[in-house]
Amino acid sequence: MGKKLAVVALGGNALLRGNQVGTIDEQEQNTTETLENLIFFIDEGYDLVITHGNGPQVGNILMRNDAGEQLYGIAQMPIDICVADSQGGIGYMVERMFRNVLNRHGIKKNVICLVTQVLVDINDPAFSDPQKRIGKIYSKEEADDLASRKGWLFKEEIKTRGGFRRVVPSPLPVSVMNVSIVHDLARAGNIVIASGGGGVPVYLDEKNDVRPAEAVIDKDMASSLLATQIRAEEFYILTDVPYIYINYKKPNQEIKEFLNYSDTLKFLNQGQFAKGSMEPKIRACLDFLKNGGKKSIITEAFKLADKRYGSKITMEYEDDRR
Amino acid sequence: MGKKLAVVALGGNALLRGNQVGTIDEQEQNTTETLENLIFFIDEGYDLVITHGNGPQVGNILMRNDAGEQLYGIAQMPIDICVADSQGGIGYMVERMFRNVLNRHGIKKNVICLVTQVLVDINDPAFSDPQKRIGKIYSKEEADDLASRKGWLFKEEIKTRGGFRRVVPSPLPVSVMNVSIVHDLARAGNIVIASGGGGVPVYLDEKNDVRPAEAVIDKDMASSLLATQIRAEEFYILTDVPYIYINYKKPNQEIKEFLNYSDTLKFLNQGQFAKGSMEPKIRACLDFLKNGGKKSIITEAFKLADKRYGSKITMEYEDDRR
Repeated sequence: MGKKLAVVALGGNALLRGNQVGTIDEQEQNTTETLENLIFFIDEGYDLVITHGNGPQVGNILMRNDAGEQLYGIAQMPIDICVADSQGGIGYMVERMFRNVLNRHGIKKNVICLVTQVLVDINDPAFSDPQKRIGKIYSKEEADDLASRKGWLFKEEIKTRGGFRRVVPSPLPVSVMNVSIVHDLARAGNIVIASGGGGVPVYLDEKNDVRPAEAVIDKDMASSLLATQIRAEEFYILTDVPYIYINYKKPNQEIKEFLNYSDTLKFLNQGQFAKGSMEPKIRACLDFLKNGGKKSIITEAFKLADKRYGSKITMEYEDDRR
Repeated sequence: MGKKLAVVALGGNALLRGNQVGTIDEQEQNTTETLENLIFFIDEGYDLVITHGNGPQVGNILMRNDAGEQLYGIAQMPIDICVADSQGGIGYMVERMFRNVLNRHGIKKNVICLVTQVLVDINDPAFSDPQKRIGKIYSKEEADDLASRKGWLFKEEIKTRGGFRRVVPSPLPVSVMNVSIVHDLARAGNIVIASGGGGVPVYLDEKNDVRPAEAVIDKDMASSLLATQIRAEEFYILTDVPYIYINYKKPNQEIKEFLNYSDTLKFLNQGQFAKGSMEPKIRACLDFLKNGGKKSIITEAFKLADKRYGSKITMEYEDDRR
């Protein structure tokens, strides 16, 4: 039997925790702790592809673009370039930290990071209903000014401090570029970092030219698609909770350690999973299973190596411990 | 006979011209015009690796980091992360533009961009004599403050508007990481973009951990090393002049279209080539030849495809037209 191939999606929390300001020292330390948890994949003989979120980092890049224009008149870069910037910075950091974790474990393995474009469909309904909030919070006056000068769309921040944030579409990923190279590099034993931040969103125009989409792609959906396209057996989403719960944070909250496809879909349709948070992760897991994946696991980044934690979703119930 | 392998280093001018402000539209258009010139490599059956500079782009990223801290208190990223960010943004842009140029020419070829670390020697003398100016120009007071808070070194700007700029070491590149993957991907027919901005500078500490160097690597020297390590036959440096000149901009200026190693070394030792400009390019070309390369070419980005232009350096005189 050949080696198993796993895709592991590192969430924002795996790189930067909510109570931190985001210095590089913090990011490097969190990343190292997360990657320590991935050593068991190597020990158990998996081939490995890593994806990662970029929420806090690309948020900072967008804010720096705003600040650089205000203070120094430096031309702002569009979203696609900002996402690509974040793939470079985060991907390099993850590669370097993983090389060092492997070195300390005496494991000889190569780590490589690819800048990744992900195709979306320009006719995706998300383009006519932008919902994803990005960048800084603006006052009403600033938002109106930017809307008229740059054509940006804004939504009011209700739950937080007030003000307005830019919204962009979050279309579904259709195909990950260079996916056969990701597959071949991983199957040759390299640890591959790809599709960071959901990938740089692009689409094909009527001439088959690749055009940038002013959008962001959900990183879990893009990771699930990548896992499907490279025919991975297992798909891991690392987040800030150790399990999938139903009735989350209610008196009758229940841990679901083993789930099958149809029960999970039922819970999803009941609205058990928070929109923009656990819901897209569950959808990403179910998509992976529906398209041939064997097992989807959601768990806390820092508990991944501990098999007592984590919720495992399979097509049919399968009461194993991985 | 197998296909020839060429490394082509795109200079700053190939992506962004001196008289432009640096919008993404300008960068995309320049990049497209430059890449149009690379089609002849495909037509003539070369395998191809692209490297690129990042001077204006990483300069802007450093300024945005400064502005983001000032306006919003966002933690600044160190140089290694800023270089990696620029590899992501520029590499993605070059990949996308090259895909579109190939598409318009009806050429089916894959383009892939790798985030690349380049090892330097922490004992390189450059570390005790930082010379490379980066980032914005500060007043004396600002420079003194940053020097005491962050330990940055500054030099006065004599030739330009005055003020002070941060200086960092520019050590020689020792080895390009993942170089065998660059080789294999290029030899499999993919166009590979790697080692952008000279690579992210890193070094191995006493435990063999990879550590970031607060430094920048000359992109031509890093490209030359990459060309050597992947055993390329030809190494092209695209810049803003169509030839190598001696007595440049003097009444007795002379175009040198064909040069051999020893004459070029003689001109170099005479101080014929401007420091920080043509000199490192000449050194990069000579290093490549000394280490087994067949031919180094320096020419203007937008004239590459026109064989009437360009200076060709070979070990012995070789009066051909490529």
